Amino acid sequence: MDAAALWQRYQDWLYHHEGLGLFVDISRVRFDDAFVESIQPRFEKAFQDMQALEGGAIANPDEERMVGHYWLRDPDLAPTPELQQEIVETLEHIHTFARKVHQGEIHPPDAPKFTDILSIGIGGSALGPQFVAEALGALDAPMAVHFIDNTDPAGIDRLLTKLSDRLATTLVIITTKSGGTPETRNGMVEVKHAYEQKGLNFAQHAVAVTGVGSKFEKLAQAEGWIDIFPMPDWVGGRTSEMSAVGLLPAALQGINIDEMLAGAKEMDAATRQPTVQGNPSAMLALSWYFVGKGKGEKDMVVLPYKDSLLLFSRYLQQLVMESLGKEQDLDGNTVYQGIAVYGNKGSTDQHAYVQQLREGVPNFFVTFIEVLNDRQGQSIEVEPGATSGDFLSGFLQGTRQALYENQRDSITVTVPVVTPRTVGALIALYERAVSFYASLVNINAYHQPGVEAGKKAAATVLNLQQQVVKAVLESNQPLSLQALAIKVAPDQIESIYLIVRHLAANQRHLAITGDLGQPSSLMISAL
Amino acid sequence: MDAAALWQRYQDWLYHHEGLGLFVDISRVRFDDAFVESIQPRFEKAFQDMQALEGGAIANPDEERMVGHYWLRDPDLAPTPELQQEIVETLEHIHTFARKVHQGEIHPPDAPKFTDILSIGIGGSALGPQFVAEALGALDAPMAVHFIDNTDPAGIDRLLTKLSDRLATTLVIITTKSGGTPETRNGMVEVKHAYEQKGLNFAQHAVAVTGVGSKFEKLAQAEGWIDIFPMPDWVGGRTSEMSAVGLLPAALQGINIDEMLAGAKEMDAATRQPTVQGNPSAMLALSWYFVGKGKGEKDMVVLPYKDSLLLFSRYLQQLVMESLGKEQDLDGNTVYQGIAVYGNKGSTDQHAYVQQLREGVPNFFVTFIEVLNDRQGQSIEVEPGATSGDFLSGFLQGTRQALYENQRDSITVTVPVVTPRTVGALIALYERAVSFYASLVNINAYHQPGVEAGKKAAATVLNLQQQVVKAVLESNQPLSLQALAIKVAPDQIESIYLIVRHLAANQRHLAITGDLGQPSSLMISAL
Repeated sequence: MDAAALWQRYQDWLYHHEGLGLFVDISRVRFDDAFVESIQPRFEKAFQDMQALEGGAIANPDEERMVGHYWLRDPDLAPTPELQQEIVETLEHIHTFARKVHQGEIHPPDAPKFTDILSIGIGGSALGPQFVAEALGALDAPMAVHFIDNTDPAGIDRLLTKLSDRLATTLVIITTKSGGTPETRNGMVEVKHAYEQKGLNFAQHAVAVTGVGSKFEKLAQAEGWIDIFPMPDWVGGRTSEMSAVGLLPAALQGINIDEMLAGAKEMDAATRQPTVQGNPSAMLALSWYFVGKGKGEKDMVVLPYKDSLLLFSRYLQQLVMESLGKEQDLDGNTVYQGIAVYGNKGSTDQHAYVQQLREGVPNFFVTFIEVLNDRQGQSIEVEPGATSGDFLSGFLQGTRQALYENQRDSITVTVPVVTPRTVGALIALYERAVSFYASLVNINAYHQPGVEAGKKAAATVLNLQQQVVKAVLESNQPLSLQALAIKVAPDQIESIYLIVRHLAANQRHLAITGDLGQPSSLMISAL
Repeated sequence: MDAAALWQRYQDWLYHHEGLGLFVDISRVRFDDAFVESIQPRFEKAFQDMQALEGGAIANPDEERMVGHYWLRDPDLAPTPELQQEIVETLEHIHTFARKVHQGEIHPPDAPKFTDILSIGIGGSALGPQFVAEALGALDAPMAVHFIDNTDPAGIDRLLTKLSDRLATTLVIITTKSGGTPETRNGMVEVKHAYEQKGLNFAQHAVAVTGVGSKFEKLAQAEGWIDIFPMPDWVGGRTSEMSAVGLLPAALQGINIDEMLAGAKEMDAATRQPTVQGNPSAMLALSWYFVGKGKGEKDMVVLPYKDSLLLFSRYLQQLVMESLGKEQDLDGNTVYQGIAVYGNKGSTDQHAYVQQLREGVPNFFVTFIEVLNDRQGQSIEVEPGATSGDFLSGFLQGTRQALYENQRDSITVTVPVVTPRTVGALIALYERAVSFYASLVNINAYHQPGVEAGKKAAATVLNLQQQVVKAVLESNQPLSLQALAIKVAPDQIESIYLIVRHLAANQRHLAITGDLGQPSSLMISAL
């Protein structure tokens, strides 16, 4: 395509949201008019699905649930007055709570104010809050936030050691829909233990964000926690950033959550337009469909050229992959859908793997995230006529161009500055794009049936461990792996090997002699 | 495969390094004996290439360079006494320097000791140090480390604000082979400016790690920096962690660098064995080749189940993708090689995208990194008989099993604990695996020709910006985009639009009126 034609294409497809100052450029995705026309019927259906979903239809058929994250930023759209009220009241509750914490009206037992937040949660209960904290948290925020987002004992210890004396003034937020997520439960048990070790009352430092009527809510009530915030069942974990899950920690950090909601609301309104051109989320979905032939044949590489947006790619990794990675479509056909997402930040990642992007296996497309404002205040020149920000901008443009020259497609999303409003808008932009794409390929974007298998298998392993420990302790002589397996579960010998190896490494219950590389040589005895 | 056969396969292929306590399990990669036999000739060549490389042959033909990162941990292997001496002396230099800094013998002008390290570098000069700091840095380390790894003005400002008063006691390490990397240069200029603003003498806080005889070395000498450490030209950026690039910041943080080197040396010795079975790096390379058919058809998802290894996946992303992502093979054929790498950590990532891994597009294989030791000290039980670490272990095993059931291949690398020695070994394990894989697919793993295009394009953009600014300032009336392009570069109108949009957003030189979404409507005038 010659320069003039490309410039025309750029202008024809350039999306600009004046209110938000946001641009979407898909001119470097090489679809043609015939493709746009051919996909039109699928978009008709996608726009209908959107209307049904926003109207309160059961958009998650497997779980018989409505999908209402759009209502969170525009409660008037919620299908019943009760839902509207619930949303408005929760938001007020968050505001009031944050104000009281900041003013010391809510304070720890032995200090005038809470200084830190320790957020315990995983997946949808962690990635949104982490992304927003990194993007929008101020250095002089009223409270510093920390996360436990795993069940790694060493990771938990490190954080608890770091907090150390500040534990007494730390507000612990535990986010779990049912209380049934083991990582979160474990984090809570470990942290509670740490509080008790220091003679501190855990309940007087704890806040729950959980499903209404859940077992976890009852636990928090029974123990007299400081407060409880609702996690509605019509909001999925990966789209929960604008519910109490995301808004509570953000408000406590002093982030303007009303602006976040306003940005998302503006973007939601813009992405209701039932045409591809002029609807930025539809333009993204169209591009994803084109590059991957509707089968996820290309990975989505997300490169925000702004340090504070580093975690946006990880946030999108969850939003896109958990929503779109599905074995079956809505008609029960086996489709193995999905789009792999990765990336950290530009221009840093250029030095890590642009080599492969430009020259290597062409199995991806790039999404550049550009931020127009370089910094608060003036820049110095790092060489005559150029600032650090000019270089950052130049690297983005240069890489986009170098990839295009080698037939690698890219999308560029531009925001004027990183604020609560633009972050809210970016989240909403991608939530809708995922929703559209799911319609295009006819899948349920709102369930995650494949997550259960690993959890069940893990539970089986833990159950097996109990039996292994029991058998070893009951035996009055060392057992070979073979003999142990016969006692416990003959067809699970490999799992048993892995279990005893792990237990022995932690000096728990048993010891191993023999060559660990030769499982048949091992003898296992009680410690 | 039935349970007995799978257990036999597990044992047959299990690699165990007794000294390091490291295991590699490739039993869940579904190659058969015929495949292993068929790839044997390629491995013969790979083992020969390894010997030639370690003997000092020109292993990077494009750049006419030897490849010597293996010599760094075993100087006796370096091909000349001069090289041996250089390696040994640099290591001594690092030890001495770190000791003097810790003891206050080397100190800032107005304080008894340096408290912080600010490391400025990007790509190979940042990812290794960042990974090692995250994996091995102690909370009570003698110095805290911070990184500038980009040219983002807001990111630089945030870090400088955070350091603030501690700038006076911060040791700045600038790592750049030639001085020609703009991000690093910009970071240095910005930081130097911050020192000057505070009335501090930058040179008395600065250390260079750079190429011997480079322009940058001359600059550091001329300005009287505290010290200069060499970056040998036979070590590439992505394999430079065991050179001064990685060892200097590690030693300053109190990390035992001799143990890191020892672990790498042990692993290097183990991966010299010229057979696939029994050589853990060859086993990895074989697996990568099998799953991706030697064409990178599957992405490598790296999941360390240990918080402190979070950055290992990002480190490998660079090592693998920059080394293997090549357009041409050594014979000049167009091959578009590479393996895409992504991942963060388990079990956290299970909640983000195991849904897609288990059920979605099967375009990947997983590498689990297991750490046997859960934590220092005893664990509490989070439920009867189970610790947080048991859950972490159970999730790893459960996910591995759930993926295998759905025909998704995985590799498991197990280390006993995260120490300098095992981190050194992991780095060496993957360096050699990449080297073997490059031999298998006949590419040069040690150059990065594709990186230049983006840099050149960026330089063109910055050059164009200068012309644009000049033209706008010289014009005595507002110019349309079209008119501006005619004055400057008619076929670069899109670039000009992007440039003026960025400049206007930063209130520099010019202002724009009109609708930014309609480029043809814009008028540009001098500020």
